[in-house]
Amino acid sequence: MNIAMLGSGFIARFYADALAGQRRRDKLTMVYSRSADRAQIFANDYNVTHHTDNLEEAVNHPDVDVVVIALSNELHLPAVEACAKAGKHVLCTKPLGRSGEEAKRMLQLVEEAGVMGGYLEDLCYTPKFLKSLQTVQSGGLGRILWAKSREAHPGPHSDWFWDKNKSGGGAIVDLGCHCIEIARNFIGKNIKPVEVMCWAATQVHPIDAEDNAIGMVKYANGAIGQFEVSWCFRGGMDLRDEVMGTEGTIWVNNFLRTGFDVFSTGKGGYVAEKAETNKGWLFPVGDEVHELGYNHMFTEMFDCIENGSQPQETFYDGYVVNAIIDAAYKSAKSGIWEPVQLDDWRGDTDTTDKAEAASYDDQYYLIKEEVLPNGEKKIILKDKKTGEVVRRDI
Amino acid sequence: MNIAMLGSGFIARFYADALAGQRRRDKLTMVYSRSADRAQIFANDYNVTHHTDNLEEAVNHPDVDVVVIALSNELHLPAVEACAKAGKHVLCTKPLGRSGEEAKRMLQLVEEAGVMGGYLEDLCYTPKFLKSLQTVQSGGLGRILWAKSREAHPGPHSDWFWDKNKSGGGAIVDLGCHCIEIARNFIGKNIKPVEVMCWAATQVHPIDAEDNAIGMVKYANGAIGQFEVSWCFRGGMDLRDEVMGTEGTIWVNNFLRTGFDVFSTGKGGYVAEKAETNKGWLFPVGDEVHELGYNHMFTEMFDCIENGSQPQETFYDGYVVNAIIDAAYKSAKSGIWEPVQLDDWRGDTDTTDKAEAASYDDQYYLIKEEVLPNGEKKIILKDKKTGEVVRRDI
Amino acid sequence: MNIAMLGSGFIARFYADALAGQRRRDKLTMVYSRSADRAQIFANDYNVTHHTDNLEEAVNHPDVDVVVIALSNELHLPAVEACAKAGKHVLCTKPLGRSGEEAKRMLQLVEEAGVMGGYLEDLCYTPKFLKSLQTVQSGGLGRILWAKSREAHPGPHSDWFWDKNKSGGGAIVDLGCHCIEIARNFIGKNIKPVEVMCWAATQVHPIDAEDNAIGMVKYANGAIGQFEVSWCFRGGMDLRDEVMGTEGTIWVNNFLRTGFDVFSTGKGGYVAEKAETNKGWLFPVGDEVHELGYNHMFTEMFDCIENGSQPQETFYDGYVVNAIIDAAYKSAKSGIWEPVQLDDWRGDTDTTDKAEAASYDDQYYLIKEEVLPNGEKKIILKDKKTGEVVRRDI
Amino acid sequence: MNIAMLGSGFIARFYADALAGQRRRDKLTMVYSRSADRAQIFANDYNVTHHTDNLEEAVNHPDVDVVVIALSNELHLPAVEACAKAGKHVLCTKPLGRSGEEAKRMLQLVEEAGVMGGYLEDLCYTPKFLKSLQTVQSGGLGRILWAKSREAHPGPHSDWFWDKNKSGGGAIVDLGCHCIEIARNFIGKNIKPVEVMCWAATQVHPIDAEDNAIGMVKYANGAIGQFEVSWCFRGGMDLRDEVMGTEGTIWVNNFLRTGFDVFSTGKGGYVAEKAETNKGWLFPVGDEVHELGYNHMFTEMFDCIENGSQPQETFYDGYVVNAIIDAAYKSAKSGIWEPVQLDDWRGDTDTTDKAEAASYDDQYYLIKEEVLPNGEKKIILKDKKTGEVVRRDI
Repeated sequence: MNIAMLGSGFIARFYADALAGQRRRDKLTMVYSRSADRAQIFANDYNVTHHTDNLEEAVNHPDVDVVVIALSNELHLPAVEACAKAGKHVLCTKPLGRSGEEAKRMLQLVEEAGVMGGYLEDLCYTPKFLKSLQTVQSGGLGRILWAKSREAHPGPHSDWFWDKNKSGGGAIVDLGCHCIEIARNFIGKNIKPVEVMCWAATQVHPIDAEDNAIGMVKYANGAIGQFEVSWCFRGGMDLRDEVMGTEGTIWVNNFLRTGFDVFSTGKGGYVAEKAETNKGWLFPVGDEVHELGYNHMFTEMFDCIENGSQPQETFYDGYVVNAIIDAAYKSAKSGIWEPVQLDDWRGDTDTTDKAEAASYDDQYYLIKEEVLPNGEKKIILKDKKTGEVVRRDI
Repeated sequence: MNIAMLGSGFIARFYADALAGQRRRDKLTMVYSRSADRAQIFANDYNVTHHTDNLEEAVNHPDVDVVVIALSNELHLPAVEACAKAGKHVLCTKPLGRSGEEAKRMLQLVEEAGVMGGYLEDLCYTPKFLKSLQTVQSGGLGRILWAKSREAHPGPHSDWFWDKNKSGGGAIVDLGCHCIEIARNFIGKNIKPVEVMCWAATQVHPIDAEDNAIGMVKYANGAIGQFEVSWCFRGGMDLRDEVMGTEGTIWVNNFLRTGFDVFSTGKGGYVAEKAETNKGWLFPVGDEVHELGYNHMFTEMFDCIENGSQPQETFYDGYVVNAIIDAAYKSAKSGIWEPVQLDDWRGDTDTTDKAEAASYDDQYYLIKEEVLPNGEKKIILKDKKTGEVVRRDI
Repeated sequence: MNIAMLGSGFIARFYADALAGQRRRDKLTMVYSRSADRAQIFANDYNVTHHTDNLEEAVNHPDVDVVVIALSNELHLPAVEACAKAGKHVLCTKPLGRSGEEAKRMLQLVEEAGVMGGYLEDLCYTPKFLKSLQTVQSGGLGRILWAKSREAHPGPHSDWFWDKNKSGGGAIVDLGCHCIEIARNFIGKNIKPVEVMCWAATQVHPIDAEDNAIGMVKYANGAIGQFEVSWCFRGGMDLRDEVMGTEGTIWVNNFLRTGFDVFSTGKGGYVAEKAETNKGWLFPVGDEVHELGYNHMFTEMFDCIENGSQPQETFYDGYVVNAIIDAAYKSAKSGIWEPVQLDDWRGDTDTTDKAEAASYDDQYYLIKEEVLPNGEKKIILKDKKTGEVVRRDI
Repeated sequence: MNIAMLGSGFIARFYADALAGQRRRDKLTMVYSRSADRAQIFANDYNVTHHTDNLEEAVNHPDVDVVVIALSNELHLPAVEACAKAGKHVLCTKPLGRSGEEAKRMLQLVEEAGVMGGYLEDLCYTPKFLKSLQTVQSGGLGRILWAKSREAHPGPHSDWFWDKNKSGGGAIVDLGCHCIEIARNFIGKNIKPVEVMCWAATQVHPIDAEDNAIGMVKYANGAIGQFEVSWCFRGGMDLRDEVMGTEGTIWVNNFLRTGFDVFSTGKGGYVAEKAETNKGWLFPVGDEVHELGYNHMFTEMFDCIENGSQPQETFYDGYVVNAIIDAAYKSAKSGIWEPVQLDDWRGDTDTTDKAEAASYDDQYYLIKEEVLPNGEKKIILKDKKTGEVVRRDI
């Protein structure tokens, strides 16, 4: 694969680190930036053949097979338009659009052009997430009841992100898109997200957007997704997921507690990047690009392009996430559960909660079975007709 | 202190274990149970002088200085009435009442009688909680923004708890009372809880009450409390608190990850109580009665009776918690934020959010200060008048 | 119990905190210090009736039932002599003596006087240790193969401890006594410690004693005990135990990772004592006196005095530990395995390793049984006669 | 790079998984096995162009640039001989030889032939290790005092490994080679390993080789390396490293506690490979090949071949490790510290311990500086002439 990178900032460099690492056979052949200077610096740093400040040129260059969009949110749609027109496959950073409406247009564009639209939701490609998802999908946790994802840190590096006019929002738009899609994967992409309740507030910073938010997403089968996002967290980057199923539990800690603890008095040299301090107990990760899912993400995306198959995360998923975010912002204002607007729903339409109470025998439902310390077994039953709760020792 | 125990079940035995342990100078002199047989068994087990199935007799016995109520919820009010009448100090298990209304009457009864009303909220007395609270109160975390408490397990042991008519509710009433009071302590008891949003569902069990719920409690100063409670959790008892302040973070894990890991093939003998299995990795706690706060709770309660001072957790706190639970149940039905009904509010009445943006100089607010990997400092500022966001490297 | 405290320093105050806490019925009635001033200060702080700088007076006072020795090592023997003469029960801090020889004399003194000699090895009374020991003793881990204990911190608080002439040694004498007795408990007190190999070095400090050491203790049944002790550790107090048995594993972390994480920017107030810093991630414990075992230790000691039974840790245990330390110091010099000199051995005398290979059938021993990912079972066998190793899929 | 794989077993497949993953540009073009059938199966599974049961043919094939040796220990030397003769670069699995003598010959062979000899010590390439090493080398931990590595699991999968005649030893040869090289990296490869003390025993299995061992490696600068290896561990694969320096600490947990916890009742489907059970709490890793270092290892090896530079781990390192293992086995028999035989030492020859005591002023050394809870500072000093230890409050 020959790749054009649109953008040369923080996230573009992260992507380039992943693409250039581990002797990959794919190659950055083009970089575009609105600033010709920055394009050139990036090209030098990553040994990219071509660079330009002309988007059309970048996208249409014959050495380019696939385009990676690493631009700020308001530029996603025009970039996708250019790719669709050029008939180039396109991978777009998260969130896909600034709204469900915008995301939907991007989806239509790639589908009409017949190119692949890959949604670069890296946190759905972390090694821990992939193995968790495999466990959930193979039934290891039973029926999923609740999936929570939390992302919190002391706020973004880039100044433009703090300006709502440029970024389109605060912690929800920045971090919530990850959390929403993580929970949605665990609950099942075929299950329709129905409505959203969200609390959001600006608790610390002198900004217009929210710097702290909590949201709940109800799914058609009765499962609940939860997101917790914050720009007020102190202590590094808190990146945790939790899943609760009828037969099991998953706890994932992606960053601050990964079995890697360093203490330093600070009198020696450099210890670890991204910590708020270089003294005391620090919790680096081994290989950040890998832990954040970039390697597995690009591997799958390019494999899919070659195979003509759909990647795990597509523009359709980006659209669903944007629709949920729309509902979250609406709910944060209205104070009520807001429906998720999904005109184009491609999953299950049977919205009945299929969970059925476990029958113990003709007369009773089984509420609970418990082994007592003395080895005896106790069961708690409910009469199917009278509703009476009884205990039996076996 | 000479103590009468009202009740002889699961929680009464837990209390008795705490009271009898560590060579305490306080003594159980009386036990009451509705069943004379169970009263006698309890008396034998814990070497209690007197036992009875007559509540009045238990409370009024001259050998009794203080009464501990360990009865099911509907019996709290009559028991408190008896104590107030007898002029005996009374310590009541959680939740105080089945509603704010009921809790308020219990509060009035002890205040009119001039006896101490101690609220046995043990999880606000765990050693980790007490030290956390001290850290928060001494300013170690700055201004508190968010306090979350989670309690989840595979459901109660007792059959009556699964019957909503007897227990008064599900996971919220059983576990939420802990979580609400934990968060309230961190945010500050003088800060008024204003409104509540709650999701609750019956996801697994054939019962009428909720077996899973998530709630948010807005406080007058803009802080947010959060509770997560469940009877559907698999893996043991999940008991975790998190606090986020402007200057720090606290993570407390009270049960499943306390630095005590045991693996067993199950071919040997007994390993640990309360685990769902005796094979594989197990996570016992060292001293359950201590880790759950019972020791420090009773120590403080009896000290307060002797000193004539108020304990950390009083009937007034129980009343506030009940009022919040009322709002939570209401919200779970209505789907909107419901106000907390507190006719008798004794805390701060100035409900203004006092947080002010950090001023950088006359022209700018400070959004963020960051030390870059190369050692240079970057600040992000916001113009007080124009709202423009700018970056400066120092 | 009416208690005389001999000593008024760091450890005496730790003991007093435990004795005074949780409404215990035992009471400090006397304190002795070589300095009359310090005795008086201590008496004021802990509300002790009597204080003196005369050891004989303290021990022989009629209000004293039991004596707690919290003096520096060279004063243990004379203090025990005084107690034995006075016929008072005596609890002595660790290590019991400065050598096996000295410990043996102390043991003889209490046994001849018919008083109880309790060895205050607090780390064998921590809640996690007690539950671990119970698990091991009930067979949950099968046959114990290896027990390791590690204690490391940045060095003692008191100046005299850094002077070998006063303290009698370095990290081994200070910390190793704990580790040795912990491992010995897990392996079994009836199993004879046979020989010791020890490495010790002065790596950092300008002192004569060792500030870092590693030792191995061979037991008669083939099990191995291991201690790791250091005064060079940075990051707090590292207090961990590990046990490996044929059927299971135990990992205990007593201090730095107990499910209690605090991050602070340091701009707020006080966070936690004993950390090397008050910034960054800190790991306090909930209730230090409890986590370090003082509560359970004194409870058991006084119960035993009342019941006339032997406590878990006696002067005999202190003697065995001293004998092992003697061998460790000898080995650190000689560079070879040194025998443990135990003239007075009261445990098992049959030193055969009783472990037998698991027989699979008449022809084979079972080396390993493994379930393959596809669910099939594989066994690895060894021919009893030929010694040939074969694999069988079942 | 076009790669020939010698071997088709467990480790060959692990290597192939790493080489085939993440769209690498290097390619397996040849596989050799002693069994033509197994060679063919492997070739099919990994899409390898050529396969053969003739070693010479594999090594000399024109499509082969570099040879990876994944054979059992006794075949390493002949395979290296063939590669040297063919003038092909060679990467050899661990341990390099069965003895220092054998490893030395392999080193000479590649050096004389002018080909690269890469030592496939994967655990020195795990992401956590690489970042730890960078921290240590940049001075973040000050002077390294102690480096410990532990590898323990329930024993190898392959039957031949349990037969000492085939494997050349037990847990030391299997696991100790990792641990030794890990510690040596942290302490510094230019520091000469001087002597070794080792305890080894056959505690559980009916085999001739050791299934449990502990060793200490003294380095010329006074630092100490420690290895703990076992085939008796229950609970999964325990893979932990610890480093202690004058200014800091590193704790790495590579496998069982990496922030990924799964609980399953076992009623659902498959959860995670390599666990001893599929019930209860399980601790999978996200991406095993990555966590074990294979990706970074091969990336660096091939980069070095292209650049003509030396990789981090070379045949020389393999030789040093073998020499240390030789001394360990000798010590396990003799019971004394055994010298490491290194005829060909290429590191520092000045063996003086360069650590000097910190001078406080002309009169005193600084032993310790401590900030007291009340904020005051205390220092403990030692008189340079008299040796007296004094305390000063500042």
